Amino acid sequence: MTRISGQVRIVGAGLLGTSLGLALRKHGVDVVVSDTSRASQALAIDYGAGREAAEGDNPTLIVVCVPPDITPAVVVAELAAFPNAVVTDVASVKQPVLDEILASGSNANNYIGSHPMAGRERGGAIAGRADLFIGRPWVIVPHPGNSFDAINLITDLALEVGAAPVNMEAVEHDHAVAAVSHVPQLISSLLAARLISTSAQEISLAGQGLRDTTRIAASDPNLWVQILGANASQIAPVLKDFAGDLAGVIAALENLSQPGSLTTVSRAIEAGNRGVSRIPGKHGGGHTNYSIVVAMIDDKPGELARLLTEIGQIGINLEDLKLEHSPGAQIGLVELSVLPNAEEKLVADLTSRGWRLA
Amino acid sequence: MTRISGQVRIVGAGLLGTSLGLALRKHGVDVVVSDTSRASQALAIDYGAGREAAEGDNPTLIVVCVPPDITPAVVVAELAAFPNAVVTDVASVKQPVLDEILASGSNANNYIGSHPMAGRERGGAIAGRADLFIGRPWVIVPHPGNSFDAINLITDLALEVGAAPVNMEAVEHDHAVAAVSHVPQLISSLLAARLISTSAQEISLAGQGLRDTTRIAASDPNLWVQILGANASQIAPVLKDFAGDLAGVIAALENLSQPGSLTTVSRAIEAGNRGVSRIPGKHGGGHTNYSIVVAMIDDKPGELARLLTEIGQIGINLEDLKLEHSPGAQIGLVELSVLPNAEEKLVADLTSRGWRLA
Repeated sequence: MTRISGQVRIVGAGLLGTSLGLALRKHGVDVVVSDTSRASQALAIDYGAGREAAEGDNPTLIVVCVPPDITPAVVVAELAAFPNAVVTDVASVKQPVLDEILASGSNANNYIGSHPMAGRERGGAIAGRADLFIGRPWVIVPHPGNSFDAINLITDLALEVGAAPVNMEAVEHDHAVAAVSHVPQLISSLLAARLISTSAQEISLAGQGLRDTTRIAASDPNLWVQILGANASQIAPVLKDFAGDLAGVIAALENLSQPGSLTTVSRAIEAGNRGVSRIPGKHGGGHTNYSIVVAMIDDKPGELARLLTEIGQIGINLEDLKLEHSPGAQIGLVELSVLPNAEEKLVADLTSRGWRLA
Repeated sequence: MTRISGQVRIVGAGLLGTSLGLALRKHGVDVVVSDTSRASQALAIDYGAGREAAEGDNPTLIVVCVPPDITPAVVVAELAAFPNAVVTDVASVKQPVLDEILASGSNANNYIGSHPMAGRERGGAIAGRADLFIGRPWVIVPHPGNSFDAINLITDLALEVGAAPVNMEAVEHDHAVAAVSHVPQLISSLLAARLISTSAQEISLAGQGLRDTTRIAASDPNLWVQILGANASQIAPVLKDFAGDLAGVIAALENLSQPGSLTTVSRAIEAGNRGVSRIPGKHGGGHTNYSIVVAMIDDKPGELARLLTEIGQIGINLEDLKLEHSPGAQIGLVELSVLPNAEEKLVADLTSRGWRLA
């Protein structure tokens, strides 16, 4: 069973193009992979992401997976070469791409932008993986010229590879990704830059917090300067708000004896608590909407399975599960996320069945 | 074989105290756990972190694991109560703590500060785990009054729980943790605070980059305001350098047509690349030694239990488990961590039993 019945042409055999090809090929879709780099194209095809273009190819859908700065030109070229195909792209910024394509005078009714919210620090075909899109939002940004058929085709593409389609205006998308992706990238880079002048002994104290906050600072400057430049108008205001908060904290730390200074610092940390609590779980539902029950299990094989089997018997669906395995403690902690209305029953039934809850 | 031959008294049954007790108990050390909160103390003892204090206790080593603002007073009280014991603490800031203890007039020769670079966003005894210190640096900050015996005792403590001892001056330590811990904490909090005003749809686009950069923003404001306040003189200069770089990027993004603007943005990302590349890999800490196998399960009750039951039948012990539950995709991803020598068998056996692996 496949949602995509026609041929799919992928232009650009980088991380996203290759991953998309791999995911579609798993469902038996006929995928053509094309890249101006023969080496990337050959690698993606070797990988199983699709086949070379051939005489008589007649794609239903074209997905342009090239860097943002050349995305509009490649989309325009594909619209001209395949006038019967719907063309989408995966660039991280949508309004400037749409504006340029509309201004080109080509048949933009066949173009519908999209942006799968998936990626890795490593790029290129070599980093491609078929499960890259699973459970990730795939933003679709229709414009007034698009037919419902075109919108449905991109929706099917997203669903086919396991992503969750989300419709948004292009400018809404650009505002959203500034906050959740572009600003975090810049802040992470600026934070990591402060490490350049640390001594080897100092940096040896680095812990998981530093690693997590700076992980994306390893991202490709060539790609990111394009993204940040294209979305500058959305990013700059958020950075200015950040800079204002930062200035307040610096002033407080430099004048600790002034009344209210520690309150300023404390409020900054509390505001961070509130902000991070708004990030939904990986599923798309807010993790704050779940109730958490922590059960203790003996640290021996089969105990976790027994617990989950009993939860199944109780008839409660787990929304999420985290295992904290502490060999030294001889017990493990299992953090069970359930819908709030299920918490009371879960606690009561597990307790009556003899499970210890923390 | 244990390096610590005498009795260890742990004052404060929070995350660090409980974890330390669990780790020492694994080696059979006689551990006393004491906390002004009866509930915390009882939980830590239930957990296996040690026993209650008793008449005639005669600790060789006392580890004060209380919040930073009360650390000096508790250290002074312990020095007085147990004049034959070496007393250390685990506070995140060392020079102010040392200054206060030296100024107290107590016998500071028996006090030697230390700081295990280990923690979690979640605090309290409930979050304690015996492997918390494994592979983590444990900074020891001797002062001129300390004997070699005292320094060696803290070194043995660090080694006993699997940490890597590092000797530093107190002020060096405070400078280092400003860069690798305190500044990242504040920046993460300020970044997460920008999410408060995002819409639910915008925040639904959050990816792993945002989750990683803001994870530590969930940390406890009460603890952090103490740490940041105590180390303000080391933190403020780093934040000012950060603010200077940030102002440069904002100006560039607001004046993209000016020559050199994109170069400024590109250099910021490149500097981040250089900074993050300086972070050393984890030193054999817990989870880096595991192999990860990702299994796909249908998103319906009982599937996870069935998977875990079969893994139990295969006879492989799970070291960790993460569930990624994606309703949109109608499948869930289960990330299974196992010892490397178990990976091949797990993959082969699960595949032959019909499980789909990613």
